[in-house]
Amino acid sequence: MAIIPFYKPTLRRKDMDAVLQTMVDERIGPGERKNLFLKEFCDRIGFAHGVALRTVIDAMICGLKILNLPEGSRIGTGVLAPSYYEDVVRSLGYELLLGDIDKEHGCLSQAEADRLVQEEGCKALLLHEPVCQIPFGVDYKELGVPVMEDISQSIGSSFEERNAGSWGDLVVCSFEEDGVVSCGGGAALVFNEKEHKTAATELLSNTGSHVELPDMNAALGLIQLAALDEHLHRRRELYSLYTKSLMKTHHRLFGIGHIDFEPNGYGFCTTLDSKAEDVIAFAKKYEVSAKRTFADSLASHHQEAFETYPVALPAFHRSISLPIYPFLSQSDLQVILKVIAHLP
Amino acid sequence: MAIIPFYKPTLRRKDMDAVLQTMVDERIGPGERKNLFLKEFCDRIGFAHGVALRTVIDAMICGLKILNLPEGSRIGTGVLAPSYYEDVVRSLGYELLLGDIDKEHGCLSQAEADRLVQEEGCKALLLHEPVCQIPFGVDYKELGVPVMEDISQSIGSSFEERNAGSWGDLVVCSFEEDGVVSCGGGAALVFNEKEHKTAATELLSNTGSHVELPDMNAALGLIQLAALDEHLHRRRELYSLYTKSLMKTHHRLFGIGHIDFEPNGYGFCTTLDSKAEDVIAFAKKYEVSAKRTFADSLASHHQEAFETYPVALPAFHRSISLPIYPFLSQSDLQVILKVIAHLP
Repeated sequence: MAIIPFYKPTLRRKDMDAVLQTMVDERIGPGERKNLFLKEFCDRIGFAHGVALRTVIDAMICGLKILNLPEGSRIGTGVLAPSYYEDVVRSLGYELLLGDIDKEHGCLSQAEADRLVQEEGCKALLLHEPVCQIPFGVDYKELGVPVMEDISQSIGSSFEERNAGSWGDLVVCSFEEDGVVSCGGGAALVFNEKEHKTAATELLSNTGSHVELPDMNAALGLIQLAALDEHLHRRRELYSLYTKSLMKTHHRLFGIGHIDFEPNGYGFCTTLDSKAEDVIAFAKKYEVSAKRTFADSLASHHQEAFETYPVALPAFHRSISLPIYPFLSQSDLQVILKVIAHLP
Repeated sequence: MAIIPFYKPTLRRKDMDAVLQTMVDERIGPGERKNLFLKEFCDRIGFAHGVALRTVIDAMICGLKILNLPEGSRIGTGVLAPSYYEDVVRSLGYELLLGDIDKEHGCLSQAEADRLVQEEGCKALLLHEPVCQIPFGVDYKELGVPVMEDISQSIGSSFEERNAGSWGDLVVCSFEEDGVVSCGGGAALVFNEKEHKTAATELLSNTGSHVELPDMNAALGLIQLAALDEHLHRRRELYSLYTKSLMKTHHRLFGIGHIDFEPNGYGFCTTLDSKAEDVIAFAKKYEVSAKRTFADSLASHHQEAFETYPVALPAFHRSISLPIYPFLSQSDLQVILKVIAHLP
């Protein structure tokens, strides 16, 4: 039996045909399909304008630049955000400050957001929403600084009708191979303000055609967006099955457990009582890939700071994720459910 | 009759199959094909190491970063280089200084390179090789500062066995839709120094998987590289036919006219005696796209500086390019040859 891969893009005949068509049409670079993809994404997330770029790094840098923050500004984020947030913020000469997460939803906690803005003087917040989670009950925007919400792992998640993408003044989303929506690679940044649109256009005036998403990749994204609801449906089904299996153990689901939460099923993450390495080895014995969820997060540079990040650090050390994607076969699914139900 | 497009990527069944296969294999993000493409590119250009990224902007930034230049360094380049060179250099806090081009080959002249390094104190040179050209007879490396050579428009060009890519300590190449080698979008940076490899690896440690070329795009690049010699052969044939047609007029070919020059046929550029706009309109009358070759170059910000850039500025104002690519039909070719022979 081959090992069940950790993730798989959801690619059907339609996806392949769309990419193929860009080559038949000899339109593979950034063009009309890029524009169309961006429009569909804007409509889906509920924003008016945006840019579709090749990397989430560029998208975040673009987002921060159009905010026109003072030189050397402090920027706040949660400590479970990806390490590359540091690269983004530093490349602009800003300083990244970290806050602890909320136990309920795994995103930056309200109290920590308050501290970062009011005490530490952060001029903007980068809101990372880890594995399906959204910060229900929090309103960062009230703090009066711009919020850039990263829905790469939460696109499609909702809680009582409030969707991922509704917490930010700007929203960024990456479309990597492991994403719920994939372009093979790429990202979008969306916003509503006219002045942001003007600033983004100005910013890309020289580089545009070299950094915007190629049509070859956008064509894939278009089909992925069109199939998103179907994919979300399946991912949620799986998430729900996994959750039930997990209830047979003493382990806890990471993040929101509320019945009104509709996760996007980007990932399935549990925070263990036991050592992550042992559980990963256990899963591997049954040919199931498992990974430490937050190994590449900013917390990796603060591994011992339990007093500063009392909620995030245990999650950092002891959270693992298991494979979850629409293309899991029925037999794979049974194996994974069994592994979850018996996690040591 | 439809207008003959300005460029067309050279996409055959093989290219399509290769891209399709990445989707069938569910390996569309940066992975093995990216590595393979990079290796093939390194071998072709004659370098040991490198990175394959999604944008030429990132590739150039990576190149400058691994050179580890002093803060606020001055960087020299030719005034016909693309405008985005300014974005690249500024994003790192460096200052871009411009030099005039050589009348013979259109690249930065030896005298101007000397001035930029010895008088102006430039700590590195960015060598742009416009439309097929290579700087034969010049050796920038003797000046003792690192040279980053951009072969996006010259890959495959050679003069007496010396190839594009042999003038730089580092070489960068973009693979856009209009390139001789296309990935739909993307770029590579290659180098020989071990320490550059270490620096590049360190630089990409957090961001790597988000900025490296997706396999979907790399798969296309692999086939394009495999077919490169065949494409170069056809492009050179066309270039030679165009050149002969141009000799029936009083217009001059841009750059090297020497018989030992093997252009890559990326573009066909002539510097006019007449107004560019008139000639573009003339070509359009016969359904042939034509464009001002250097409209987007750095010279666009110095349009009146004829005394500072006596060679480049006439080229900036009065150079036009005509369609040249392997997929030109025989009838299109005849029309273009006729238009060239009668350029007003």
